[in-house]
Amino acid sequence: MPNSRLITLTTDFGVADHYVGAMKGVIHSINPDARIVDICNSVQSFDVLDGALAIEQAYSYFPSDTVHVVIVDPGVGSARRPILAVTGRHLFLAPDNGVLSFVFAREERLSVRHVTATHYFLQPVSQTFHGRDIFAAIAGHLSKGVAPEKIGDEITDFQRFAMPRPKQVTPGQIKGAIIKVDKFGNLITNLRLEDAPALAGAGPSNFQMTIGNQQVTKLVTSYSDGAANELLCLMGSMGYLEIATNRGSAARLCNAGRGTEFTLTLS
Amino acid sequence: MPNSRLITLTTDFGVADHYVGAMKGVIHSINPDARIVDICNSVQSFDVLDGALAIEQAYSYFPSDTVHVVIVDPGVGSARRPILAVTGRHLFLAPDNGVLSFVFAREERLSVRHVTATHYFLQPVSQTFHGRDIFAAIAGHLSKGVAPEKIGDEITDFQRFAMPRPKQVTPGQIKGAIIKVDKFGNLITNLRLEDAPALAGAGPSNFQMTIGNQQVTKLVTSYSDGAANELLCLMGSMGYLEIATNRGSAARLCNAGRGTEFTLTLS
Amino acid sequence: MPNSRLITLTTDFGVADHYVGAMKGVIHSINPDARIVDICNSVQSFDVLDGALAIEQAYSYFPSDTVHVVIVDPGVGSARRPILAVTGRHLFLAPDNGVLSFVFAREERLSVRHVTATHYFLQPVSQTFHGRDIFAAIAGHLSKGVAPEKIGDEITDFQRFAMPRPKQVTPGQIKGAIIKVDKFGNLITNLRLEDAPALAGAGPSNFQMTIGNQQVTKLVTSYSDGAANELLCLMGSMGYLEIATNRGSAARLCNAGRGTEFTLTLS
Repeated sequence: MPNSRLITLTTDFGVADHYVGAMKGVIHSINPDARIVDICNSVQSFDVLDGALAIEQAYSYFPSDTVHVVIVDPGVGSARRPILAVTGRHLFLAPDNGVLSFVFAREERLSVRHVTATHYFLQPVSQTFHGRDIFAAIAGHLSKGVAPEKIGDEITDFQRFAMPRPKQVTPGQIKGAIIKVDKFGNLITNLRLEDAPALAGAGPSNFQMTIGNQQVTKLVTSYSDGAANELLCLMGSMGYLEIATNRGSAARLCNAGRGTEFTLTLS
Repeated sequence: MPNSRLITLTTDFGVADHYVGAMKGVIHSINPDARIVDICNSVQSFDVLDGALAIEQAYSYFPSDTVHVVIVDPGVGSARRPILAVTGRHLFLAPDNGVLSFVFAREERLSVRHVTATHYFLQPVSQTFHGRDIFAAIAGHLSKGVAPEKIGDEITDFQRFAMPRPKQVTPGQIKGAIIKVDKFGNLITNLRLEDAPALAGAGPSNFQMTIGNQQVTKLVTSYSDGAANELLCLMGSMGYLEIATNRGSAARLCNAGRGTEFTLTLS
Repeated sequence: MPNSRLITLTTDFGVADHYVGAMKGVIHSINPDARIVDICNSVQSFDVLDGALAIEQAYSYFPSDTVHVVIVDPGVGSARRPILAVTGRHLFLAPDNGVLSFVFAREERLSVRHVTATHYFLQPVSQTFHGRDIFAAIAGHLSKGVAPEKIGDEITDFQRFAMPRPKQVTPGQIKGAIIKVDKFGNLITNLRLEDAPALAGAGPSNFQMTIGNQQVTKLVTSYSDGAANELLCLMGSMGYLEIATNRGSAARLCNAGRGTEFTLTLS
């Protein structure tokens, strides 16, 4: 077994600048044995919900004791606190702006600390790049086995928000919204099977999704279950209903994006 | 020597979502010592030819016993099989859709297996993300030394396709097509030196390439052998004739892209 | 401690092609224990200044004895030399085109060698991809501990350029230019605090920045110190004055980009 905690990065720093590289340098300088895995550094800029989804969808696949660094931080340099969250299996470093909300929602055991161990920070701490000066530095020390209690005191008033849920508007009719467009142009809705259990037995005669001026009547199980340019719905690997099309972009076909509303009718 | 096979990733999952991160989590959970190298996760979406080119161009530079995971998989969840190919030096995990065709074309020793070792899969297996639930899981186990015979039975009816080759249309005249536009805007043609051996001795007096409404008459050996906005041809590092321009995008100058046809005249 | 020098990559090869993957394969084949960190592979194509900034901003955070591979190389295959620079703490491999200029400017101890150890190169050496055939191969050997003296003889006539500096045009008025737009749309200027020491005490009554047809009068310390669509100036983490806006793109608000000029008035 490696003698060092794995570190993951989920940020909106992008891949075209030096930001992620500088963070990795800081980590390797503190822990020459560090092992760092990029989950995603192209979270939509400033988009805390998008970052919250990315870490929610990936963290549980990592080994116990992984340190997940999650930075979508439009409030960097303001009064918002850096936090360290410890769940039953993992550690999370993030700004206290709700970016860990969906992790918190899934975890029963949870303690959150305000990161105040300034002796571990890079000095001087810039006001605009805590990813490098605070989070990477603390992650490097945590990866070497520093105990969470050494990072700061426990707090209970940390930020969290709920995923906006779909709403039942009439019997058999639910309104929701697109929460993500992925690289393929799949439209990820905020609807889980628990929001519409009748979906499990739905078929073409009683299923209809309306989005923009498009209708989707085909409920399938894989992306290839449709003709070219035909819109499809399926329960996707993220646990949400998706609107997709075989080898194409549903986002383009529907002219839809993050925030676009949809209506699902199960008659 | 590391006691674990290196794993590479070549996928169309992109860098802006959690997909590749989740795969890496699965691999590290199975093999905490795993070493993972991204070859390219931005293969054109659904584009099996583009993925086939990416892995063909990179795999042979890796050490013996590397496990290459290649996922461009528009048929995920359909009847298409996951396969494990073993060549003289490397292992390859991919959907059975031809994405390994150019590897197969270069390798003399080759055995291909249908991946059926479901006890290694993540459970439940989603119908839309076999990269995570099947391929990453099998790669993790292979990296720990599991033998290919344990992964599934050998098959011979796997998919493969041939690269579309240029055609001699008249003596001295060859028609071909652009198979790739790279990040710099270089237009990679499907023409190898063996398709036009006379290229080796060609010069400005007897070389002419026509693409769209552009003529290229300069055959050079490096990208810098031309003036600004001057189109150039050269035998590139991929082994194909390229159309390029010094510090600029030939794709933009020619208004050309993947699939654009060209005519080469060697008089 | 790992028994192998860390390798970093800073290139304009992008993330959508096989180029970086092939380089990593070469390195791992030479040194199976290699540890490779991407600083940034999406430097603007052919843009030596952009590459020079990326490596300047990241290298010093890495541990001693790191081998930094920096490839923005529009002159590949021409007479330009490959070089190995050794500073007090790090090693750098790059084409001799000035891409290490800002590293050189920061380092007092510096020796530069012409890379001529052809027995370490991949053979045959292509004329268009020295990243793979020369730089990755040499980096692999350096990571195993090969001494710089074995790579080639010292030279003194290597290329370097100075960052274009802002100019004082009248007392209290300075003209400069945007040197980089980052992923967030922040406009990085070429102005350091030493170019305008009065900035340290400047406030809304005596600070004005003009860029395009926009005026910026707010000098702040963090990105969140402004309303939506309000333009801000701050000293950023790169050490340069930046034009920014809270949770948005200053580049879009100003319709400005790399090279756009600005005027700073401190009255």
